[in-house]
Amino acid sequence: MAGKVFFSVTMSLDGFMAPDDVPLDVVFSPEGRTDPRAQRWMTKWSELQAWAFPLRWFRENLHLGEGGEEGVDNDIARATYERTGVSVMGKRMFDGGERAWPEEAPFHTPVFVVTHERRDPWERPGGTTFHFVNDGIESALDQARESAGDRDVRIAGGGETIQEYLDAGLVDEFSVTLAPVLFGTGIRLFDRVDPDRLTLTQLSSTASARVTHLTYTVTKR
Amino acid sequence: MAGKVFFSVTMSLDGFMAPDDVPLDVVFSPEGRTDPRAQRWMTKWSELQAWAFPLRWFRENLHLGEGGEEGVDNDIARATYERTGVSVMGKRMFDGGERAWPEEAPFHTPVFVVTHERRDPWERPGGTTFHFVNDGIESALDQARESAGDRDVRIAGGGETIQEYLDAGLVDEFSVTLAPVLFGTGIRLFDRVDPDRLTLTQLSSTASARVTHLTYTVTKR
Repeated sequence: MAGKVFFSVTMSLDGFMAPDDVPLDVVFSPEGRTDPRAQRWMTKWSELQAWAFPLRWFRENLHLGEGGEEGVDNDIARATYERTGVSVMGKRMFDGGERAWPEEAPFHTPVFVVTHERRDPWERPGGTTFHFVNDGIESALDQARESAGDRDVRIAGGGETIQEYLDAGLVDEFSVTLAPVLFGTGIRLFDRVDPDRLTLTQLSSTASARVTHLTYTVTKR
Repeated sequence: MAGKVFFSVTMSLDGFMAPDDVPLDVVFSPEGRTDPRAQRWMTKWSELQAWAFPLRWFRENLHLGEGGEEGVDNDIARATYERTGVSVMGKRMFDGGERAWPEEAPFHTPVFVVTHERRDPWERPGGTTFHFVNDGIESALDQARESAGDRDVRIAGGGETIQEYLDAGLVDEFSVTLAPVLFGTGIRLFDRVDPDRLTLTQLSSTASARVTHLTYTVTKR
């Protein structure tokens, strides 16, 4: 049995999955501490992800120490991680993450990076190996599926890559953690997605005290 | 005890509460049957509201006949109606509705219409009386509160009116029925709302088989 192709993101109530488009390496650079756009990025991103920071799973996966909250949010965050046999990401997410992730990158699976860069596989401690794919999103997904076997393939990001896979009808289902936050501007989850080509069905909806975790199946019309 | 000021709308997963801005009287005119924009309006609106049409309460309130579904969706639709002591609406919603509602308009309470039109109160069979307010949204809300006593005031619509009340910090809480539909274009619920002035807190989140009913409290920062 083949696994599913999915993505899982946190979305603001007004539909954004990320603040304005500031490269991650700028946000995390020394200059980022005084750049107003980078500051806003960090404030908004922190509001959006506030539900995840206190979780036991989050602390554990990023080696931030013992403890943390258990409960619905923690169970769902952990389940998302555990179902993922392989991740796929775009060049921008990789480039930013390469600078921002700890040495033990938080995937612990093969990761296929859609990029024009030709590069040998890059193995990190803890089981993450990045493979660089130069012939497009479908090829990257084929390789990811092959590698995942009967586990699921997660389209990890960034925003543009998720939109491309979704719009191409290559996503089987997706999860949105809906946070009670308004962004006003930023990168919308469903921008560049043709709304008339996809039919969504609500598969599950689970609320915690802070947010609601929604999962939808996608079928092409 | 004073009632609350709230609104309740169905929102597409990509953040829209209405399709493109086609006046209701065009949608429901004979020409509307062949106008592509009016057609799209009707298709999208029907997808968005699909969860409500089969409900027992919906059929009952619009006198569409016996029967209909019961359950979570029906309970919530009915509760939204029953908590409403008074409605407030904008001129556009009234103008469109005046042509589209049945003679027994589906409010059965006082309705305050924010408009420049000077007009005597208009009483409809079934308990709906429209009062026309010419001095702005705050005045209309004051009159609505006064009239509602300890019951709640619903900002009924349209979109622009909801945005104005929300942005002015005059809404205590709101409900969004999140439908698994993508619009791509249309009127966004949170357009024209300054995201940095409002803090939202998830008050409740209840899923049915089709949609999720979310309620948030609003506080001004």
